[in-house]
Amino acid sequence: MNLRIVTGTANPVLTDAIAAALYTQPVPPVVERFPDGELRPVVNDVRGSDVYLVQPTGPPVNEHVMELLLSLDACRRAGAGRITAVVPYFGYARQDRRGQAGEAIGVRVVADALASAGAQRLVVVDPHTVALEAVCAVPVEMLTAVPALAAAVGERTSGDAVVVAPDLGAVKLAKHYAALLSRPVAVVAKTRLTGRSVVAEDLIGDVDGRPAIVVDDMISTGGTIEAAVRVLLGHGATPEIAVVATHGLFVDTAVARLSRSAIRSLLITDSVEQSVAPAPPPDTCSVAPLLADAIGRLHRDEPLDDLLAHT
Amino acid sequence: MNLRIVTGTANPVLTDAIAAALYTQPVPPVVERFPDGELRPVVNDVRGSDVYLVQPTGPPVNEHVMELLLSLDACRRAGAGRITAVVPYFGYARQDRRGQAGEAIGVRVVADALASAGAQRLVVVDPHTVALEAVCAVPVEMLTAVPALAAAVGERTSGDAVVVAPDLGAVKLAKHYAALLSRPVAVVAKTRLTGRSVVAEDLIGDVDGRPAIVVDDMISTGGTIEAAVRVLLGHGATPEIAVVATHGLFVDTAVARLSRSAIRSLLITDSVEQSVAPAPPPDTCSVAPLLADAIGRLHRDEPLDDLLAHT
Amino acid sequence: MNLRIVTGTANPVLTDAIAAALYTQPVPPVVERFPDGELRPVVNDVRGSDVYLVQPTGPPVNEHVMELLLSLDACRRAGAGRITAVVPYFGYARQDRRGQAGEAIGVRVVADALASAGAQRLVVVDPHTVALEAVCAVPVEMLTAVPALAAAVGERTSGDAVVVAPDLGAVKLAKHYAALLSRPVAVVAKTRLTGRSVVAEDLIGDVDGRPAIVVDDMISTGGTIEAAVRVLLGHGATPEIAVVATHGLFVDTAVARLSRSAIRSLLITDSVEQSVAPAPPPDTCSVAPLLADAIGRLHRDEPLDDLLAHT
Amino acid sequence: MNLRIVTGTANPVLTDAIAAALYTQPVPPVVERFPDGELRPVVNDVRGSDVYLVQPTGPPVNEHVMELLLSLDACRRAGAGRITAVVPYFGYARQDRRGQAGEAIGVRVVADALASAGAQRLVVVDPHTVALEAVCAVPVEMLTAVPALAAAVGERTSGDAVVVAPDLGAVKLAKHYAALLSRPVAVVAKTRLTGRSVVAEDLIGDVDGRPAIVVDDMISTGGTIEAAVRVLLGHGATPEIAVVATHGLFVDTAVARLSRSAIRSLLITDSVEQSVAPAPPPDTCSVAPLLADAIGRLHRDEPLDDLLAHT
Amino acid sequence: MNLRIVTGTANPVLTDAIAAALYTQPVPPVVERFPDGELRPVVNDVRGSDVYLVQPTGPPVNEHVMELLLSLDACRRAGAGRITAVVPYFGYARQDRRGQAGEAIGVRVVADALASAGAQRLVVVDPHTVALEAVCAVPVEMLTAVPALAAAVGERTSGDAVVVAPDLGAVKLAKHYAALLSRPVAVVAKTRLTGRSVVAEDLIGDVDGRPAIVVDDMISTGGTIEAAVRVLLGHGATPEIAVVATHGLFVDTAVARLSRSAIRSLLITDSVEQSVAPAPPPDTCSVAPLLADAIGRLHRDEPLDDLLAHT
Amino acid sequence: MNLRIVTGTANPVLTDAIAAALYTQPVPPVVERFPDGELRPVVNDVRGSDVYLVQPTGPPVNEHVMELLLSLDACRRAGAGRITAVVPYFGYARQDRRGQAGEAIGVRVVADALASAGAQRLVVVDPHTVALEAVCAVPVEMLTAVPALAAAVGERTSGDAVVVAPDLGAVKLAKHYAALLSRPVAVVAKTRLTGRSVVAEDLIGDVDGRPAIVVDDMISTGGTIEAAVRVLLGHGATPEIAVVATHGLFVDTAVARLSRSAIRSLLITDSVEQSVAPAPPPDTCSVAPLLADAIGRLHRDEPLDDLLAHT
Repeated sequence: MNLRIVTGTANPVLTDAIAAALYTQPVPPVVERFPDGELRPVVNDVRGSDVYLVQPTGPPVNEHVMELLLSLDACRRAGAGRITAVVPYFGYARQDRRGQAGEAIGVRVVADALASAGAQRLVVVDPHTVALEAVCAVPVEMLTAVPALAAAVGERTSGDAVVVAPDLGAVKLAKHYAALLSRPVAVVAKTRLTGRSVVAEDLIGDVDGRPAIVVDDMISTGGTIEAAVRVLLGHGATPEIAVVATHGLFVDTAVARLSRSAIRSLLITDSVEQSVAPAPPPDTCSVAPLLADAIGRLHRDEPLDDLLAHT
Repeated sequence: MNLRIVTGTANPVLTDAIAAALYTQPVPPVVERFPDGELRPVVNDVRGSDVYLVQPTGPPVNEHVMELLLSLDACRRAGAGRITAVVPYFGYARQDRRGQAGEAIGVRVVADALASAGAQRLVVVDPHTVALEAVCAVPVEMLTAVPALAAAVGERTSGDAVVVAPDLGAVKLAKHYAALLSRPVAVVAKTRLTGRSVVAEDLIGDVDGRPAIVVDDMISTGGTIEAAVRVLLGHGATPEIAVVATHGLFVDTAVARLSRSAIRSLLITDSVEQSVAPAPPPDTCSVAPLLADAIGRLHRDEPLDDLLAHT
Repeated sequence: MNLRIVTGTANPVLTDAIAAALYTQPVPPVVERFPDGELRPVVNDVRGSDVYLVQPTGPPVNEHVMELLLSLDACRRAGAGRITAVVPYFGYARQDRRGQAGEAIGVRVVADALASAGAQRLVVVDPHTVALEAVCAVPVEMLTAVPALAAAVGERTSGDAVVVAPDLGAVKLAKHYAALLSRPVAVVAKTRLTGRSVVAEDLIGDVDGRPAIVVDDMISTGGTIEAAVRVLLGHGATPEIAVVATHGLFVDTAVARLSRSAIRSLLITDSVEQSVAPAPPPDTCSVAPLLADAIGRLHRDEPLDDLLAHT
Repeated sequence: MNLRIVTGTANPVLTDAIAAALYTQPVPPVVERFPDGELRPVVNDVRGSDVYLVQPTGPPVNEHVMELLLSLDACRRAGAGRITAVVPYFGYARQDRRGQAGEAIGVRVVADALASAGAQRLVVVDPHTVALEAVCAVPVEMLTAVPALAAAVGERTSGDAVVVAPDLGAVKLAKHYAALLSRPVAVVAKTRLTGRSVVAEDLIGDVDGRPAIVVDDMISTGGTIEAAVRVLLGHGATPEIAVVATHGLFVDTAVARLSRSAIRSLLITDSVEQSVAPAPPPDTCSVAPLLADAIGRLHRDEPLDDLLAHT
Repeated sequence: MNLRIVTGTANPVLTDAIAAALYTQPVPPVVERFPDGELRPVVNDVRGSDVYLVQPTGPPVNEHVMELLLSLDACRRAGAGRITAVVPYFGYARQDRRGQAGEAIGVRVVADALASAGAQRLVVVDPHTVALEAVCAVPVEMLTAVPALAAAVGERTSGDAVVVAPDLGAVKLAKHYAALLSRPVAVVAKTRLTGRSVVAEDLIGDVDGRPAIVVDDMISTGGTIEAAVRVLLGHGATPEIAVVATHGLFVDTAVARLSRSAIRSLLITDSVEQSVAPAPPPDTCSVAPLLADAIGRLHRDEPLDDLLAHT
Repeated sequence: MNLRIVTGTANPVLTDAIAAALYTQPVPPVVERFPDGELRPVVNDVRGSDVYLVQPTGPPVNEHVMELLLSLDACRRAGAGRITAVVPYFGYARQDRRGQAGEAIGVRVVADALASAGAQRLVVVDPHTVALEAVCAVPVEMLTAVPALAAAVGERTSGDAVVVAPDLGAVKLAKHYAALLSRPVAVVAKTRLTGRSVVAEDLIGDVDGRPAIVVDDMISTGGTIEAAVRVLLGHGATPEIAVVATHGLFVDTAVARLSRSAIRSLLITDSVEQSVAPAPPPDTCSVAPLLADAIGRLHRDEPLDDLLAHT
């Protein structure tokens, strides 16, 4: 089977980079939008091919999900030999349980729709829920950008920097970074710990007089990061804070929030196309090499275990 | 089972009217939108109930479709006894075949996703494709607003008016109106007929000196209507043209287009919530009585054959 | 994968022609019929092959559908690598909506059964419903015989002939023929048009003193054609009428009906095996080259867009 | 839910008898047959009802199966509350394994199509394969007519009659009859047993000077019965042989075959409608009471264990 | 529908308690075990009933899962009106992602098999993975025993006790307990935190001179608890440690491990039947009232939001 | 695709023999068992391969079935190109119907779970129910070891031996052996035959003064064999009885039972790994050549008809 990289409209620059790394020409996105908002993707030249459709589902998430569903259907009907949906950022992944009665489980709704529309396999990067592969009916390769990000942030930060999880959900991630960087970990926790005063946000670990590297899987509104920076400064961290995340959504007031913080450097990947550049402009560590490597191995039926986000 | 009308955000006014006609209190829409655009509907008080979720999928169609999918999933997990998706206007219905190689079939993608998310039955009004019920895995009740619209337009137009199909796709619809109104039919056709000059648009039938009633299932950009009006005037129709359609989307430049035409009256239903009012402001014939009647009968297990759009 | 053409009993002559055009030997039909009418197809030599099972579902339609289902199951269990059902004439395609309450949607029942029995893909020719591909869960290639038929009828008819749609449902088809032949179109319409008397059947367009080419997708009882011929003669068409249709079923009294008409030539394809030859004996334009071309391209993973019946 | 008995065309007399036993009016069969052989059943008055659709699938089996599939779909779309297919004789049940390479497994094809078309439950009588309920995705109630038939044949035969299995496949059935009648069993076996000459058909057990009751689940061509009678007479059975079977298909030359045998009485049920009456005319033991009893209990959610054909 | 509590063999005592709280007689477990180990459950008296089949899948987990699958199938075939699998302890829940390449995702395998066998809904208590409801195709009600356990442990411990999470995975649970008990939290973490020596296990928070309440969702080998106790004592906790967990499996050497620890009290629920009593014998807080409450509400179609483990 | 033989823990010796016959190195079983009994198979090196996972489901059957399900899921997620479950002995095959009300149909439960977990095809040897392939959704190749066993027993027994079916269910099997060996057949039947006294077990055929070969598909507790031997001796068979069966489970007291019988030789295959050796130690006729032959042909897409157990 031929390898075919099909470009969605959500991140054509990333897709081009992936295709270039694989020495192949991507199928460009042909997605007409009717005046009433209905999308009409057209996918050609995929008959009998091993198709990798690249479409992260960042904002506008509903547009991107619907385009992905329609494009999968188009690939299927056009006779694609095998269809892998490459969704570097997987939207709705936070809705993996009902947080209160009456909610939907968005991640399952999207996963079922993808499989029904024709996806036979998924490739994602650092999904918000580690159970994503259990939620999807089709096999999922959960890649991780953490090694690449850790290497990049390691070059940018001094040796005594502390890796900081901005909330309890990021502790495992922080430990992953810390292990790769051989640095200690600190945790910002919204909890009342023993022997401490009742504060909304507190710090576990010691950052006094040291630079901090705040890590998370994604930055959305920047609120969590902003609060963590405030706590770190309050605990004596030097005001040269580095922030690292796989996915940079920067929605809402994220740009304003982060620009008024003591953030010296901001490092994300290019999983999501940036429409508004936050200040300071983030450094970008591309996931194109990672995705190209994974796609190449999948296409050649080689193991890709060392690329996976096993925890 | 209790009857529960659940309100989507796409047309709460219509939903309220349906519920009022059924002497019941609708479940109001609770749909949080996260800063990154992900939707989070919450549906309560449906356990064991016979649920009718009202959500037309007019523009913004992708938002409305995704909200519908999530809300169906929420109803299912909340223990609804039976779930009927009431989708007065069914978006993506025009994508019922591949118009060219490489296209998707959008109506099937949406239909499959609805069934997968939990819809056990659909209720629609005058869908663009008559094969919609063959496309959906679950039963579909295809209601028609034509009798109500015909009655309303009959009161507003003189007895010698001609029913006009603005293109060949609307001929069956025009014949339906004409039969109800006991009026003749004319057809605007983009074709080269025998013994006539080669023109882009021509008229079959006679409208000279008579008023015209142009009928269609939906008005999107208004382009088809605008062209038909031009042809009718060119063939001597009196400049008191009435336009009737079940669904009024009025996207793009529809408002400008229709306001500069010789349209005296414009009659649509309230299947789609109007954000921008076109000029002249359209008369509205509500589908709430039709939908309430159908829902009531479905809830009570009564036949609803006379409400259906059999052709 | 090897290419294997498997012959159903519905049209072995056509299947042989397809196989010959592909320089391959077809697997002959081995279908035992038990005394109680149960069918027992046996399919051999398909393990690991790219199988194309040719079985149109013309009369006796229920026998042919059941044989098709059983043969698909036999292919699947015998280890076929890929199974494409080639159904040149697709029976039950007219049941694509409920024409009245209480009906089934036969086309969906058949489509679901085909997919369930093992068909992974369908190839059809000029199906009665253009939404057929939306109705089927598996991809459908809808081929068209119209270009070949138009070329053949063009040679047989004089340059001033008019293409006639015998009813409104055939207008798009007539326009397709007319465009290929550069001829004008006329339409026989059962409707009351403006400025005309109330007649059951009327003619739109001008055929006075000219020969007519009546086109339709299929001829079943011949009733529609017979009525159209009567109308055409009444409007002065010369009594040298040509009739063209993709599928010639000639059931019931079709032979008698058509033989007593002023039909000079009758052109159909060999999609359906003829048991009773109508008079005048129809010319046949074989769909074997079309189907062989499509199957060859599908087997070699080449695009077949120019063979498709896009509308 | 209301109880609704819907009549297929395969056996309306039986259906009427079932309905009468349940003090209800059956929905009569409305099945149009188009000139090209396509069936168009119409089912009304089933919305919200507990529907029992009665349609055995004896000859013409393919017609009856297709009508059953379409009628199930019609019931589903018409809003039936629960759909049980009552198939007293289940055709294609003998194709429950591949007897040679390349065959289909017809019983699975039919079972899958029934479930896909809308059957939620099946009721059958003495199916040829005891694994029928394992083959079907939906629950199956396998009723048995043997107790009723045994009682009837017991009255018609003398006390010293021997129950005879006409082949090895009928031994379990013969033992069931023998247990109910307190009679001995003999077996006609096509095998070379020890200490006996090599004959095509031989008898295990002793029938010398005694009347025989030959039992089977169905009579198709009558060939098995005819051969068994010949063996029995050759072993000295008195020429007053009774034949009992649940299903009497009498296809092909069955009537001629059985009429020239030494068969004194022939007892079957009315599971299959008789088109040609064999001679001697068979006595009929109706399965209507059995089916009515089962349907009544299913409708009222009562156990029906004592009606089942457990083995 | 009648309410029917069906008893699996995994925990009949719990099932009896649930049934008693609902004033109903449970259907006792009838599960024959053949000499070769195959299970043969028999379920009677469920036709048309609202069935709740109670079977936690603790050790021997594979036996209990298979029995559950077979019992669900038995309920389905016996005509149960609605089937809810009540699985207080859900085995294989820890396999919710691939921890290394080549693993299965056990929780999905079990979830799919349950749905396939007939479960229409699940009820579980404090599952190990919070994404369980996203993994299952059918709705899941995830109940929590934490409020009841917290109340019970609150009575048994002094007011200055600290709630301790024995590892990072239990932090959210610990915060839940702490909130209910108005106590502070401490965390045992296997990580190198800033400003601390490199130790395998460390403590975040202050327990010096105070009693500790170690909380977890389940106790399996007791290894995690044993290590946590050691760390707590090393940090000066008073040797009156209480241990609380929803599920007490006590496999392997758990009994020995915990008996030689400084554990003063051990509190679990009766979700899993205890075969070997650990020492000190654990106090048990029954989940029967919780499950009976949930089942009663589900049966009566009442909301059960306040019983759910929302996080 | 590469051929990969994956070893389950149920019979690694057999798997090694199969792999050796195919000149390939099997993937060894890596199945961790957690202290609580949960299994964790790890399958590597299968991406893109044609995988044959060998795992008979003899005792402990539930452990072996669950391991098989998990291993299939692991293969699927690891990117296996095609997955064939090779289950030489298929447990739960006797539960192919409900023997009494309220039972499950275990064979269907297992078959559905296998397909759901990822098996695309099954290979089995002499399954207890011949309808197994109709029960499974995926194709099943039902191989037979009877020719190999017959050849082996033919060498071990004198020419005047009689093939004996130990009950009616084994008659077809006995006839298969007898045909291959050109020997007569006798049948042990638990029935009251004509002209004989009422005995629990009786013999059809003549074994007086001759050796007997008792054949069955499997030996479980040995009870059926023990009883048959008693009957044979009672009818004068020489006390040199040979016993042949495809599957030797030898559960419960089988070893004791058979050792105290007049069994001179016992011949089984190695389909099931023997934990306890019965006395006399059985001769073994390996199914490895048969399975290797079948796998090799399946892998190379060659017909395997002559290996199948057609009846």
